[in-house]
Amino acid sequence: MNHSVPAEIVTPAIMIDIDVLDRNIERMASSMLSRGLKLRPHVKTHKTLEIAARQLAAGATGLTVATIGEAEVFAAGGASDIFIAYPLWVEAHHADRLRKLAETCAVAVGVDSVESATSMGQHLGVDAGTIDVLIEVDSGHHRSGVLPEEVVAVAQAAASAGLSVAGVFTFPGHSYKPGMPTGAARNENDALGRAAAALSEAGFDVRTISGGSTPTALLASETVATELRPGVYVFGDAQQLELERCTWADIALTVAATVVSRHEAAGGNVRRVVVDAGSKILGSDRPDWATGYGRLPEFHEARITALSEHHATVVWPDSEELPKLGQRLRVIPNHVCLAMNLVDEVTVVRDGAVVDRWNVAARGRNN
Amino acid sequence: MNHSVPAEIVTPAIMIDIDVLDRNIERMASSMLSRGLKLRPHVKTHKTLEIAARQLAAGATGLTVATIGEAEVFAAGGASDIFIAYPLWVEAHHADRLRKLAETCAVAVGVDSVESATSMGQHLGVDAGTIDVLIEVDSGHHRSGVLPEEVVAVAQAAASAGLSVAGVFTFPGHSYKPGMPTGAARNENDALGRAAAALSEAGFDVRTISGGSTPTALLASETVATELRPGVYVFGDAQQLELERCTWADIALTVAATVVSRHEAAGGNVRRVVVDAGSKILGSDRPDWATGYGRLPEFHEARITALSEHHATVVWPDSEELPKLGQRLRVIPNHVCLAMNLVDEVTVVRDGAVVDRWNVAARGRNN
Repeated sequence: MNHSVPAEIVTPAIMIDIDVLDRNIERMASSMLSRGLKLRPHVKTHKTLEIAARQLAAGATGLTVATIGEAEVFAAGGASDIFIAYPLWVEAHHADRLRKLAETCAVAVGVDSVESATSMGQHLGVDAGTIDVLIEVDSGHHRSGVLPEEVVAVAQAAASAGLSVAGVFTFPGHSYKPGMPTGAARNENDALGRAAAALSEAGFDVRTISGGSTPTALLASETVATELRPGVYVFGDAQQLELERCTWADIALTVAATVVSRHEAAGGNVRRVVVDAGSKILGSDRPDWATGYGRLPEFHEARITALSEHHATVVWPDSEELPKLGQRLRVIPNHVCLAMNLVDEVTVVRDGAVVDRWNVAARGRNN
Repeated sequence: MNHSVPAEIVTPAIMIDIDVLDRNIERMASSMLSRGLKLRPHVKTHKTLEIAARQLAAGATGLTVATIGEAEVFAAGGASDIFIAYPLWVEAHHADRLRKLAETCAVAVGVDSVESATSMGQHLGVDAGTIDVLIEVDSGHHRSGVLPEEVVAVAQAAASAGLSVAGVFTFPGHSYKPGMPTGAARNENDALGRAAAALSEAGFDVRTISGGSTPTALLASETVATELRPGVYVFGDAQQLELERCTWADIALTVAATVVSRHEAAGGNVRRVVVDAGSKILGSDRPDWATGYGRLPEFHEARITALSEHHATVVWPDSEELPKLGQRLRVIPNHVCLAMNLVDEVTVVRDGAVVDRWNVAARGRNN
C-alpha cells in the first residue's frame, strides 16, 4: 500500500486501495472454493454496488444484507440472490416490500421465533412460499437466535405459516475478542451441526447451513456449513488487525486526515497531535480489548487515545518525530462497517493516485 | 413526553418531540439572557435548518459549527453569523470556501498555533481581514488548544498574517464525566479569564470570550465568558441523563425501535430482548462510566448491554415483564450528535402524533 494521500483529496475522506481490495476479495473467494463452500459476503460492510459486483465476479453466489432497505438497493443494482440475515419482524408494509423484492431476485430472510414466523407468514399471505426462511441459531454470541434444540419448533411454525424453510444460520459474534476466533468457530460449527441435524430429523430438507464472520471464515477447515457470510474481509480494519485476523498489508480502507493541532509535551500534557478525523467518519466502536480508536498504517506505535466528533487525539511514541501541522496521515478505523455508513462517496486509489469515486449506495438504509 | 410510537413510523427511526425541544431551547435561551450572555448554539448536534431557526428565534445571536461544510449549509439556510469552532488548517481550497462564506455572513474560525494562523493568513491573502479568528485555549480537556500563557504568540501571528483577532474560545470536554461538570466549569472560566487578560494586556481588543458544553453551560453563574456554545441541550441524551445534566422529561429525541428477538432466561442466557436499533442509528459512543449503550424512557431499569450495527441487546429487570415480539419501544441514544448524523430525515411528533418531517441538511458534512 502506498501511504501517501493524493493532493486532490479534501480531508477527512475515505480512501480505498483497489489492488488491496481485489486481493482480499480474491483470497476469500479462493479459500471458499477450495473448501467447496459457497461465499455470500455481507455487503453491509461496504454498501457499495461496485464492490458487490467485484465479489460476485470473483465467485460469490449471492449477497447478505442486514435490512430490507439494503436488499432493495442491491436488487436494483442487479443482485439476483439476497439473504437478509436478520430476524425480521414483518408487518404489512414489510411484506409489501419483500413481495416486490421477490419479483426480481431470490430472497431469503432470518427468523428466530414462532411468533415472528407466524406474523411473517400471515402478512405475506399467499406469497409466503416465495420467500425462503433460515432459522437463526445462537452459537454463543447470545444476541438473537434460538438454541439448536429450539430450531424445529420455529421451523414448524414457519412451515405452517406457508413459508419455505431452507435451513439454518448463525453469527458467531463472540469471535470478536482476542483468543476467541478458534473457539467461536468450533461453537459455530457445533451449533449449526446440531441445528441442521435436528431439522433433518424432523423431516425438513436442509438446503442451506450458513455461517458467518470474518474472524472465523478462514478457520473453518472442516465445517458443516454450506455457505459463509464474512463482510469485513474486503477492507480489514483495526479490530481485525488487533485480533490478528488480517495484516497491515491487507488494509484496503483508510481515512485520510490532516494534522490540525500539535502538542509537544508541555504543562503536564502528553505529546500528541490532533487529526481532523473523528467519530463522524471513523465511527466510535471501541471494544475494551482494543488499544485505541483506530490505528495508523505508517506509525504502528501511535495510539488514538480519544475521539471526538471531528478530532482524533493521537499520542505519539517518544522515539518518533511528531508530525507537522498540515501533514496528511491515514487512519484505519476500528470497524469499517461504521465508517462506510458515514460517507456518501469514497475515493478509490491505486499506487497513491485517484482512479475512481464510488457512491455508498446503501448508506443509511436502516430499515 | 408521550411514549407511544406513531403507527406510520417504520423502525428504526429518529423521533423528535417538538414541545420538549422548544422547552429546552427556551430554557437555555432564558438562562443566557438572564446572565447577560450571548448564546451561540453548536448546530453539529442537530444539523437541521428548522432547529437552528428555532434557536435563533428564541434569541441565539449566531451559530457554532464544526466544519466549513456545515457552515455552508447553514449560511445557505440564512444564518448571518457563524463561528467554526475548530482549529482549521487552511489550504487554498479552504480559503476559497471561507471567502465565499464571508460574502453572505459574518464568519469566525478557530486557530491554535502560530503555524496554522500563518498558513490561514497566507491562503486568504487580501481577504484575511474579513475572517475573525478566535484563539483556542486548552482548559483541561487536553485535546486541541494552547495554554493560556501561549495565546498571545498565536494572536500576534494571526494579526501579522492579516487576520482579525476577535478573542478566545475553549471547549471544556472534560466536563463529560460524573462529578466533573462543576470543576470543569471552574477550569473553563479560569482558562478563559487568563487567556483574555493576556490578550488584552498585549493590546488586543478582546470582543469575544467563548465557552462551551451543555454540561457546564447552566453552571457558570459568574463567568468571564461573553458567549456560550452548548449543543446537546436541545435534545438531551443518555450521557446527559447519567451526568444528571438533564432529566427524563427533557429528552426530546428518541429512536423508535421494534422488538425483533426475545429471550426468557434459558440455557444459561440472560433475560433479554433485541431491538432493531443498533450502532448505525444510535451511534456507538459509550464512555466507561455509562451504564450501557443508551436508555429506555419507559423502562428505567433496562440496560443496553451490547450493540451491533442493527441490534441492541436489552437486558430486562427480573421484576418487569419482558416486552412482546413486535412491540415498539423508544431508545435514548448515548450521544445525540452521532445519532442525528446517521439519518437523512427525522420525524417530528407532538403528543404522540406525527406533525412534520425535517431533513438533516448538514448530515455527513465532515469537511
